[in-house]
Amino acid sequence: MKLWDKGLPTDQKIDMFTVGNDRQLDLVIAKYDVRATLVHAKMLHKIGLLSDDDIAGIEKELDVLAKEIEEGVFLIEDQFEDVHSKIEFELTKRIGDAGKRIHTARSRNDQVLVAMHLYLKDELLQIKSQVKELSSNLLTTAEKYKDVLLPGYTHLQIAMPSSFGLWFSAYAESFIDDLHFVNAALKVVDQNPLGSAAGYGSSFPIDREFTTKELEFETLKYNVVAAQMSRGKSEKSTAFAMSSVAGTLSKLAMDVCLYMSQNFDFMSIPSEFTTGSSIMPHKKNPDVFELIRGKCNKIQALPYELSLLTNNLPSGYHRDLQLLKEGVVPAIQDLKASLEMAIYALKNVTLNKNILNDNKYDYLFSVDTLNELVMQGMSFRDAYVKIGLDIENGDYKPEKNTKHSHIGSINNLCLNKIEEKLKQV
Amino acid sequence: MKLWDKGLPTDQKIDMFTVGNDRQLDLVIAKYDVRATLVHAKMLHKIGLLSDDDIAGIEKELDVLAKEIEEGVFLIEDQFEDVHSKIEFELTKRIGDAGKRIHTARSRNDQVLVAMHLYLKDELLQIKSQVKELSSNLLTTAEKYKDVLLPGYTHLQIAMPSSFGLWFSAYAESFIDDLHFVNAALKVVDQNPLGSAAGYGSSFPIDREFTTKELEFETLKYNVVAAQMSRGKSEKSTAFAMSSVAGTLSKLAMDVCLYMSQNFDFMSIPSEFTTGSSIMPHKKNPDVFELIRGKCNKIQALPYELSLLTNNLPSGYHRDLQLLKEGVVPAIQDLKASLEMAIYALKNVTLNKNILNDNKYDYLFSVDTLNELVMQGMSFRDAYVKIGLDIENGDYKPEKNTKHSHIGSINNLCLNKIEEKLKQV
Amino acid sequence: MKLWDKGLPTDQKIDMFTVGNDRQLDLVIAKYDVRATLVHAKMLHKIGLLSDDDIAGIEKELDVLAKEIEEGVFLIEDQFEDVHSKIEFELTKRIGDAGKRIHTARSRNDQVLVAMHLYLKDELLQIKSQVKELSSNLLTTAEKYKDVLLPGYTHLQIAMPSSFGLWFSAYAESFIDDLHFVNAALKVVDQNPLGSAAGYGSSFPIDREFTTKELEFETLKYNVVAAQMSRGKSEKSTAFAMSSVAGTLSKLAMDVCLYMSQNFDFMSIPSEFTTGSSIMPHKKNPDVFELIRGKCNKIQALPYELSLLTNNLPSGYHRDLQLLKEGVVPAIQDLKASLEMAIYALKNVTLNKNILNDNKYDYLFSVDTLNELVMQGMSFRDAYVKIGLDIENGDYKPEKNTKHSHIGSINNLCLNKIEEKLKQV
Amino acid sequence: MKLWDKGLPTDQKIDMFTVGNDRQLDLVIAKYDVRATLVHAKMLHKIGLLSDDDIAGIEKELDVLAKEIEEGVFLIEDQFEDVHSKIEFELTKRIGDAGKRIHTARSRNDQVLVAMHLYLKDELLQIKSQVKELSSNLLTTAEKYKDVLLPGYTHLQIAMPSSFGLWFSAYAESFIDDLHFVNAALKVVDQNPLGSAAGYGSSFPIDREFTTKELEFETLKYNVVAAQMSRGKSEKSTAFAMSSVAGTLSKLAMDVCLYMSQNFDFMSIPSEFTTGSSIMPHKKNPDVFELIRGKCNKIQALPYELSLLTNNLPSGYHRDLQLLKEGVVPAIQDLKASLEMAIYALKNVTLNKNILNDNKYDYLFSVDTLNELVMQGMSFRDAYVKIGLDIENGDYKPEKNTKHSHIGSINNLCLNKIEEKLKQV
Repeated sequence: MKLWDKGLPTDQKIDMFTVGNDRQLDLVIAKYDVRATLVHAKMLHKIGLLSDDDIAGIEKELDVLAKEIEEGVFLIEDQFEDVHSKIEFELTKRIGDAGKRIHTARSRNDQVLVAMHLYLKDELLQIKSQVKELSSNLLTTAEKYKDVLLPGYTHLQIAMPSSFGLWFSAYAESFIDDLHFVNAALKVVDQNPLGSAAGYGSSFPIDREFTTKELEFETLKYNVVAAQMSRGKSEKSTAFAMSSVAGTLSKLAMDVCLYMSQNFDFMSIPSEFTTGSSIMPHKKNPDVFELIRGKCNKIQALPYELSLLTNNLPSGYHRDLQLLKEGVVPAIQDLKASLEMAIYALKNVTLNKNILNDNKYDYLFSVDTLNELVMQGMSFRDAYVKIGLDIENGDYKPEKNTKHSHIGSINNLCLNKIEEKLKQV
Repeated sequence: MKLWDKGLPTDQKIDMFTVGNDRQLDLVIAKYDVRATLVHAKMLHKIGLLSDDDIAGIEKELDVLAKEIEEGVFLIEDQFEDVHSKIEFELTKRIGDAGKRIHTARSRNDQVLVAMHLYLKDELLQIKSQVKELSSNLLTTAEKYKDVLLPGYTHLQIAMPSSFGLWFSAYAESFIDDLHFVNAALKVVDQNPLGSAAGYGSSFPIDREFTTKELEFETLKYNVVAAQMSRGKSEKSTAFAMSSVAGTLSKLAMDVCLYMSQNFDFMSIPSEFTTGSSIMPHKKNPDVFELIRGKCNKIQALPYELSLLTNNLPSGYHRDLQLLKEGVVPAIQDLKASLEMAIYALKNVTLNKNILNDNKYDYLFSVDTLNELVMQGMSFRDAYVKIGLDIENGDYKPEKNTKHSHIGSINNLCLNKIEEKLKQV
Repeated sequence: MKLWDKGLPTDQKIDMFTVGNDRQLDLVIAKYDVRATLVHAKMLHKIGLLSDDDIAGIEKELDVLAKEIEEGVFLIEDQFEDVHSKIEFELTKRIGDAGKRIHTARSRNDQVLVAMHLYLKDELLQIKSQVKELSSNLLTTAEKYKDVLLPGYTHLQIAMPSSFGLWFSAYAESFIDDLHFVNAALKVVDQNPLGSAAGYGSSFPIDREFTTKELEFETLKYNVVAAQMSRGKSEKSTAFAMSSVAGTLSKLAMDVCLYMSQNFDFMSIPSEFTTGSSIMPHKKNPDVFELIRGKCNKIQALPYELSLLTNNLPSGYHRDLQLLKEGVVPAIQDLKASLEMAIYALKNVTLNKNILNDNKYDYLFSVDTLNELVMQGMSFRDAYVKIGLDIENGDYKPEKNTKHSHIGSINNLCLNKIEEKLKQV
Repeated sequence: MKLWDKGLPTDQKIDMFTVGNDRQLDLVIAKYDVRATLVHAKMLHKIGLLSDDDIAGIEKELDVLAKEIEEGVFLIEDQFEDVHSKIEFELTKRIGDAGKRIHTARSRNDQVLVAMHLYLKDELLQIKSQVKELSSNLLTTAEKYKDVLLPGYTHLQIAMPSSFGLWFSAYAESFIDDLHFVNAALKVVDQNPLGSAAGYGSSFPIDREFTTKELEFETLKYNVVAAQMSRGKSEKSTAFAMSSVAGTLSKLAMDVCLYMSQNFDFMSIPSEFTTGSSIMPHKKNPDVFELIRGKCNKIQALPYELSLLTNNLPSGYHRDLQLLKEGVVPAIQDLKASLEMAIYALKNVTLNKNILNDNKYDYLFSVDTLNELVMQGMSFRDAYVKIGLDIENGDYKPEKNTKHSHIGSINNLCLNKIEEKLKQV
């Protein structure tokens, strides 16, 4: 990275400038490129552009490469511009000219497109599964702690009774909304773009239905110009979905950080999830949740970065699109890591079960008392005035239990209904 | 707006600061508040909190108000903080104390939540229908002009043959991706939040299934804390969906602006869609498409505005949430107007049918010629070198027709397949 | 706004779509257009393109218009596209053809450019003056409450002793950073763009030095293409400056909202700055600070909106630029209102002077105790371990006073140094 | 990065999650940490907290470390959390307990703060110098090609005559605006934050004026809470400045990409700056400028990422702030590389000197012809109508030279005035 500062000759600088950190990012999509290359080769064989020998050699060596990638021994050395040229080089080295022929009826744009679609689909499915696991755990925890009361705040002011049951399951139900966006993104990436070539199709009689089926895409992006337009669009769709999940997870983390403050003291997490201070001996800091919050907030900037990259570019490929990966790949890693940490840490949370014993929370019940009067026949406005005066005069004494019974309230959490929604999404 | 500068007394300033431009924005959601208020009142009657007389009076007067809103004669005067207090005032003026009782088991937060859900659902459905209409028209136009060839660009350099058939239908298929996000947003807003009260439910035995059914929501947001969290989330979800649509429409508009430039001269629009210049007598400017592009680009900033407003706020209501409307309402109007303009203007476009006669487009066909050689048995790399030399030496002569025949290519647009996808989304 | 939905004829729709809400926004810049028009006319007179009679009539009627604007009776009716055509119309109606001649050697782009520069300069100067007033007040308040101790937090965990003196003056010194950005934006807008015409200058021998001097610009933007490029750039520069101020003010407001929560109870504001709840009789909500926070957070999205509008547009005017005003004008109003509210509300804040009496804050002093041991000769790491054990065993007893004496610490706030910095910026 | 997927034990996962990619990013700030540590140690020695022996050993070994960093042999191994613990470890290994004592009166927050300020100052100065070099070159090129005419566009429609002289120097003058923001950011980072410790100062009698002078900061951030608040603020200020520069550079690159398209054919760049296509033998693509554009667009998302990270966090340190570096460091590298490439590539550009020979540019001169008529006494509106009719009837014949003579126009570029502005900023 610092090499730029060191007076390199121009050619090398241009090379570095144009290649960027593609080699590192491409390791992540290597396995998808191998898979798509194999299917493309099979298709070329099917339509008579590769011989039986060619395809046999290609299949064998791509399998070897796939294993090398799996085992982490596959590298993209500096002489290769990207994973695609590296793989073509390896094939050609191992099986001769047949290796070169896999590029027939394809362009690099095509390769990146299909590999990214496969990669994004895989990652979105993993994220979906993590969000489901986290939500499911939240429901279990909600059930476990449904009787532990909590002050509910509005304007950060003590407002009305809430409970850990409500709090945990609220996030579970909120994540369901995000999963609709993950599903939408999946719909977008689960379309085979292969065959778009440089963005305008090919004069070879390629069989796109064959590659769609072999690559297990739900459908294909028919129009080759539309397929090319998925560059940027598939990344942005993924980014919207990740933003949606990240927004919910960040809010949850903010709550945890606040609730762990001594001024709230609602919950604590195991000490292995906290860090100390280099100068303050008494500190136990909720770094894991702060980093979940921070990473999830950062992720929410991703769609904007991608929009700025692609906005006002006319249709057709532009080299700018190469930079899409730089933002998307680390964001995916960050979101997955944040979800994993949240799953683990929230399993191990300890709750304060006597929060409401503190007098400052007495006013929480004023609305319930007021409603009681209304149910007994007093008008709302009169009851509102009476309780207001009682509070003003120090005469207000709450009964610290709640009679909320309607659907979705403290004593009627409907966790099974939420569970069902979660299953269906 | 300028009043702030004029030395008003503080109380009035505070009032203006806190109320903002709610009165104007609330006109947009007035009809939804009336509808939700009516259903809430019916529910209160059902559970015995409103008498038969009460509900009869309320129904009658809410119908009158609904008509006044429909006719555009309903106003929110300066003495009212928002539409909700105005409606309660009107009811009370007309039917006495029964009017006040509609606030039983509700809070303003609750009213805004449910009215916004109804409003957003309505608007998303309209946007969806407009996008479908536009896409369908694009397919029709693609069919009509499927034989008009167009240069395809990569890096803004002349690259390969394309066609108006490909170009129009590419956008149609791209919009289908966006509709998945509109559908996701619809899933998010099509859940009844009513009953959340101040965000923690109510001690009244309200019947949330009744209101869900009467308001025609697909399901309800069970958890009352989750329901409250939809403030911000439902707006952001709508903003993601609108961003997605706007991104595609903006790119289309960019293409049109470029294609209308004399340097391309691919298409023109009717003169009533162009404007002149105050100093240049020869100008016919594509303002409509520039404004579609501009408005759609602006819309893409909306999710970030909403994220900044809500980010790192702990759970529970905060007054900041009042500001969500200011961004969402005009963005919806802008997107709908942009779609309407695009639908109309694209119907009336005139195409240049002889674009490829210009010599500068000859190289478009070099890949086809190359592929021809490959099909005849030459290796790709050899053919690539041969054509490259022909071009270098001025010996390259293209045959200006395309043999692209695979799925989604120039001569095989699969418009019916795209139409089918469009119907299913 | 809703008219779009009502089946208007197309021509009217196109008109509405292209004009947008320019008429309303243009009221804000009307006085600047009148001023610039007057100076332009004087210049035309100076170079012989307007007669003595012409200029006399123009001066007289522009003065009348300026007064009408000042008094708020100036309107832009629906038949006018914008303020510029309205003013030309009025002039022509009142003084005949001379009115038309003010457009010589100008274009609308030119008029908007110069009016926006004058407007933005004026507003930036007002914002600068408000930020200085607020910062100066914060220093006064810091001096007044320099002895009131406060817990300092890291990770939202109780960390080390702080004070209201530190807290108030920290924001004063932070605002100085923002003023550097306000100054930068002022440098950008304080350059005369007039004479750019449609963006490429004019064949008339206009005197740009004359207009620069008469309009009191510090310098001129020499290059006419650069002048045209200020559309977007001057707005974005203003947005960066406002974002910077807004970021600091938003953080201050977040602190206030937190500190007013019963869980902190560090400060309160006068009741006329709080609001109640429609259902909870005990609530006193810090709406003013929540709205300051919200509005300031919203403002921070403005640069991104402007970037999205202008990004990847090649040089030269595009109609998209018309939409810049829609974001900038309300943001300026919001920032000024937020600053005014903050100035007023912070003057009237009441502080809790006994915060540290609460036992939970005892650990605040652990580092001071530790440092004491170090000063007495114990190694830091040993002292760290000893205090850690004392805390663990419940043996830690703090002395609740601080000996921080270095520059910028609790007992040595250097308020005069900060005051000096504030004056110089 | 992929390790997260591989079933590591939890402790390692937490470590990886909290450390992130700090080790790699910290290499960039290592030299600044060494420098600040040395100055801090000298100060501790000055106030009697380090012995003569201690400081001698520390100075010697920090010099060695500085050299290792300079030579690129300094590494941060996996057992170290960050550069700060690595340096403390090395010192302690080499000189015993004295190494540990450098942490007296400091915290990690303090170390990061001061190192980042030094780093950002250094980089901003480099960026400023690059922007000045680029602008100066643009002025030279403008002078060289001041007579080469170019069509000026509005709405992407051919509008009025422009020139390469105007075009090149327009960007030079525009960059001056950006430099005001670079200067503002420099003002923000050129303040010594050292001494803030964990954000609330220290009970040790540290000498902050000494460290300010030794570290060559222009002034100090007096208030220790304000100093801590610079985390986030100094990065955001740098990001605003970079965004401003990047916005201008991106627009320049967009123009170049457009002008290199065969549909414009205004300029070309040396072939070593272009790339070919893997399937199209005729392509010479302007990848360098596309990547400049892309990288510069990406950079413009940085302030938003930083705002999302820091927004609505109350004052005081939060672990989220650790993530600021991840965005800032690569953005700085990208901007510097983009500026370097632009400087080099624009030196080597070849211009088409006969652009206006093409008939399609004839209308460019219509306004000049019109103005000629006005100068001869015809009213503007009449002249406008006459030229409009001439064009309509095909009777319009332009004189292809320009008489623009006013300040900043084609024949009066005022390059020396712009040069002077550039020097002063």
